[in-house]
Amino acid sequence: MRYGLVGKFTAQPGRRDEFVAILLQAAEALGSNEDCIHYLVSTAEEADAIWATEVWTNKAAHDASLEPADVRALITQAMPLIASMSDRLELQVVGGKGI
Amino acid sequence: MRYGLVGKFTAQPGRRDEFVAILLQAAEALGSNEDCIHYLVSTAEEADAIWATEVWTNKAAHDASLEPADVRALITQAMPLIASMSDRLELQVVGGKGI
Repeated sequence: MRYGLVGKFTAQPGRRDEFVAILLQAAEALGSNEDCIHYLVSTAEEADAIWATEVWTNKAAHDASLEPADVRALITQAMPLIASMSDRLELQVVGGKGI
Repeated sequence: MRYGLVGKFTAQPGRRDEFVAILLQAAEALGSNEDCIHYLVSTAEEADAIWATEVWTNKAAHDASLEPADVRALITQAMPLIASMSDRLELQVVGGKGI
């Protein structure tokens, strides 16, 4: 069954848009990763909140996606912009529209 | 900006799979709705939990999608299977892979 991942990032005050831009770069880098079905970047009403919602063919493919040098470089760039991470939720995506 | 919606349903004990089947029917009914980009149905580690994660072109289109008779019939069918609804989250989907 497909692997879903939802998680919230809280950016350092005023740094949300910089962080969003880095996540969108990460999404673009995943364009050629056939195991990555969705990698969506969202904001919410709360001023500094960013949500990432992902669907992968399997969890191992997700975990492996964090290893390449270009992704590690993005993570290093993003870390100072993050105040906290929370609300991590792992899902088994049964089906539906859009996958 | 695209409208995202995440929400958790807790099914009555042992009724999760029936509820999932109804949500998958709803997703199929949305197949021809061009404003519905994603409508995903997931389960989680918690035994009776079901998560719906949706992306729409806009909130009004989502709200309107609950009105047609076939959708209302599915809602009526699903209601007795639901113990509670929680964790509702509205998102502004900025971008990413898969939309």
